[in-house]
Amino acid sequence: MSEPTKKSMDEIMALCKRRGFVFQASEIYGGLNGFWDYGPLGAQLKKNLRDAWWADCVLNPPAAPGGGDVAMVGLDTCIIQHPKVWEASGHVAGFNDPMVDCRESKKRYRADHLWVRSATGLDGQVFLVCLAAGGAEEANDAWGAMKRRKDVPGPIWDLLVQASGTDRAYTDLSPEQRAAVLGPDASKPGSLTDPRPFNLMFPTIVGATGDWETNKAYLRPETAQGIFVNFKNVVDTSRVRVPFGIAQTGKAFRNEVTPRNFTFRSREFEQMEIEFFCRPEDAREWYVYWRDNRLAWWRSLGLASDNLRLREHDADELAHYAKEGAGTSDIEYRFPFTFPGFGELEGVSHRSDFDLRQHQQHSGVKMDYFDQERNERYIPHVIEPSAGLDRGVLALLCEAYTPDPERASKVYMKFHPRIAPIKAAVFPLVNKDGMPEVAERLRNDLRARFSMIEYDAKQSIGKRYARMDEAGCPFCFTIDGETLTDNSVTVRDRDTLSQERIALDAVVGYLADRLGSAR
Amino acid sequence: MSEPTKKSMDEIMALCKRRGFVFQASEIYGGLNGFWDYGPLGAQLKKNLRDAWWADCVLNPPAAPGGGDVAMVGLDTCIIQHPKVWEASGHVAGFNDPMVDCRESKKRYRADHLWVRSATGLDGQVFLVCLAAGGAEEANDAWGAMKRRKDVPGPIWDLLVQASGTDRAYTDLSPEQRAAVLGPDASKPGSLTDPRPFNLMFPTIVGATGDWETNKAYLRPETAQGIFVNFKNVVDTSRVRVPFGIAQTGKAFRNEVTPRNFTFRSREFEQMEIEFFCRPEDAREWYVYWRDNRLAWWRSLGLASDNLRLREHDADELAHYAKEGAGTSDIEYRFPFTFPGFGELEGVSHRSDFDLRQHQQHSGVKMDYFDQERNERYIPHVIEPSAGLDRGVLALLCEAYTPDPERASKVYMKFHPRIAPIKAAVFPLVNKDGMPEVAERLRNDLRARFSMIEYDAKQSIGKRYARMDEAGCPFCFTIDGETLTDNSVTVRDRDTLSQERIALDAVVGYLADRLGSAR
Repeated sequence: MSEPTKKSMDEIMALCKRRGFVFQASEIYGGLNGFWDYGPLGAQLKKNLRDAWWADCVLNPPAAPGGGDVAMVGLDTCIIQHPKVWEASGHVAGFNDPMVDCRESKKRYRADHLWVRSATGLDGQVFLVCLAAGGAEEANDAWGAMKRRKDVPGPIWDLLVQASGTDRAYTDLSPEQRAAVLGPDASKPGSLTDPRPFNLMFPTIVGATGDWETNKAYLRPETAQGIFVNFKNVVDTSRVRVPFGIAQTGKAFRNEVTPRNFTFRSREFEQMEIEFFCRPEDAREWYVYWRDNRLAWWRSLGLASDNLRLREHDADELAHYAKEGAGTSDIEYRFPFTFPGFGELEGVSHRSDFDLRQHQQHSGVKMDYFDQERNERYIPHVIEPSAGLDRGVLALLCEAYTPDPERASKVYMKFHPRIAPIKAAVFPLVNKDGMPEVAERLRNDLRARFSMIEYDAKQSIGKRYARMDEAGCPFCFTIDGETLTDNSVTVRDRDTLSQERIALDAVVGYLADRLGSAR
Repeated sequence: MSEPTKKSMDEIMALCKRRGFVFQASEIYGGLNGFWDYGPLGAQLKKNLRDAWWADCVLNPPAAPGGGDVAMVGLDTCIIQHPKVWEASGHVAGFNDPMVDCRESKKRYRADHLWVRSATGLDGQVFLVCLAAGGAEEANDAWGAMKRRKDVPGPIWDLLVQASGTDRAYTDLSPEQRAAVLGPDASKPGSLTDPRPFNLMFPTIVGATGDWETNKAYLRPETAQGIFVNFKNVVDTSRVRVPFGIAQTGKAFRNEVTPRNFTFRSREFEQMEIEFFCRPEDAREWYVYWRDNRLAWWRSLGLASDNLRLREHDADELAHYAKEGAGTSDIEYRFPFTFPGFGELEGVSHRSDFDLRQHQQHSGVKMDYFDQERNERYIPHVIEPSAGLDRGVLALLCEAYTPDPERASKVYMKFHPRIAPIKAAVFPLVNKDGMPEVAERLRNDLRARFSMIEYDAKQSIGKRYARMDEAGCPFCFTIDGETLTDNSVTVRDRDTLSQERIALDAVVGYLADRLGSAR
């Protein structure tokens, strides 16, 4: 295995913009922090990934641990659910980030971003604050950056240069010490409040009364709850029997205080979630099934094994299994912005019977399941593989990005053919002499069978190849003078750069073989 | 053509619930008015319709008016856009329903639902109010219903029985007359306000300040604006040249005051929208292209010609074309709840350069396009085919619903094979004697190639057919004793009920022929 190299996130983002994979949302109005739009190539890439997930998880899931079928059904539920759903799920009470307000500047900060050092001045000892999102390691850099600023007022500058001591978390200070903290945008100490919970759900108002208190609702922070509240509906109307899974994809919203890392932590994002219902004693087996199959799935889409890893949350899981659950793990990808570390792509966790039990208690509707085989009634346990669609797209983009100084494009996107937005391109070598007619016929044949087919008759053939390299199109078919005499075409392979001639009427089969079940 | 018959919406809704097409959202918490979830069959039906639209509008659109290609690209933009997007689009100022508040009861009514008759009592002449959503025609029935109520207080009952005169709209009354109106939930006249605009956009708050005024944003009321604000991005990063279209599907939200008619008018819904950019003088030609092709597309999915119609908004369109635009029309379906009338499925309209011009003005970013062929700069005109995905699904459900007293199921869902959620079912006649093994192999072969394949080994074959009839599965393949000796299977056709024997190894081809480009 070669030593992993860190790719440039700036270059990847620039290509995403330049080639229409990802745009900043509302860009002409200055953008909106934490929101991203997908351009033509990005929208198709995202659709291909979503469709591949649906095909492999809902329509044709992997065989069960002992062989045989795994029962899966799909669902498509609302973004706005009844507010009681989020009370039952715990999101109203518990889905919070602690925030600190400044009474003087009216600004608000994440409590865990405030780092302090002590200094003496302004009537005694005060604590000076810096802001660092990444924790104590970054705080030191933040102090350095502050010292390079020209706009720090004189009295605070005097404190700054003599501020010393280990960086301490604001949240660790005593009430007396907090009263001596000088806020980042304040002129006098003592303006910061104690940390207070800030709910990460986006609120809205349903109905015509416009009343904020009585008609408040929330945008879902996860698609999972739409599945849990429909558990009885699905059992009653489908033929599914435990063990079985319910899957859905869809938008979710979290009012992240600090969105960052391109589309990795955004406020509007899409999830692909499975809730798999099983007997409590089978939870471990199904946990292992989903953990291993989901990891294999990401691999199958071209994420290299050294950039992908499985991280179990609990090293002692086997010993503690009975009381701590069947397991929890993250499937992680080494993004350029986490390098050499990893960032979460999908979480696989044993949610036990927590959610169904909560909804039973809050709704008064029975959530237990009658197991005919056992003549027994119980609330099923749940294994949840929860993947981020946007994060998946981002991992595919980062993985595909391949600098190559030898090429005209200097870079190519090495997408797995199954998820590549453009499956193939058809070029007439020159835009005359009967070549366009043959090329258009081939393009039409391919379009009827495969998803996105590019047709390009402009510029030099080299420039056309370069465009397709940047778009990640795996195969280019060129119609030239020879085609007109012997019905052969040139196929150019994006990755090997090899060019071979195949029969015109073999192109559909050639592509079908290489795209497999993806069209 | 046979006389159209009105199907029962109650029966259709009951089947949708019973077979898992559509559930009330948040049902275990009493539901949320105007929100619906899709069950396993509904989610797949909706996905099939969305995918068919994408395939036929984005990947492989119909040939241009004079033959040749139509350039189309996809997009996938955020639900939450910058609030200025909605100022520019006119939705902040103009997307309103007039509402009337009652100062006494604190209730709120749609102004156009209030109908009055005059009466004498309570110190002089008053106007009595009834509520009727459907206009003056329904108001008469509403008076009758009020008179059958037992809970009307004595003084108001006295007014009610003598209330007379033509039903008049509350909005037509003079200020003096309004002061004498007795609100529907009030005890004294004069409690109703003048009509005031109520914005139909769902508000939310972006960011950690939680400040309602400075950080207000909206859920998009249409996907179209996400396309307009990305117009320059798409032109700059793709190879598209006017004329070309940008398409996207996605959720949109309207805080309807009176959601109704099942999923027809709901608060959360999904759109499939195209914005097609063209030279102003070509607008008429592209309007006709899209109008006719979109109508043909809905027909191709099985909506019968007598239940589908095109309604031009302006009968004199040709004469007024130059000053009134290239045209606006609705593609309408005869739903059971509109019968014998029609309800909108898709609107095709000439939006001129309104939206791009508005965004240019509000953002300061140039939205003009340089036409190289003509060496000319202009803001393109737009033809917009805007379809409702949920309405499309509802039309397909209503169209498919076919009562048949001769069948065990008494009803079958006659979905076009292309959009049917289950493409085929495989049954072993009995669950032993080697039949399940053959059936499972066939099922696996079909699953690898086609989307949703049902496998069922339980109950009598008649009950299994009945289940598939209600689910709208077009083809059932049964493995029986003969299969084991001569490798033939029975294929049963949902619509004709014919059963024929075909070779086991011909099943994939049989299905591929009948499903066409849909898998």
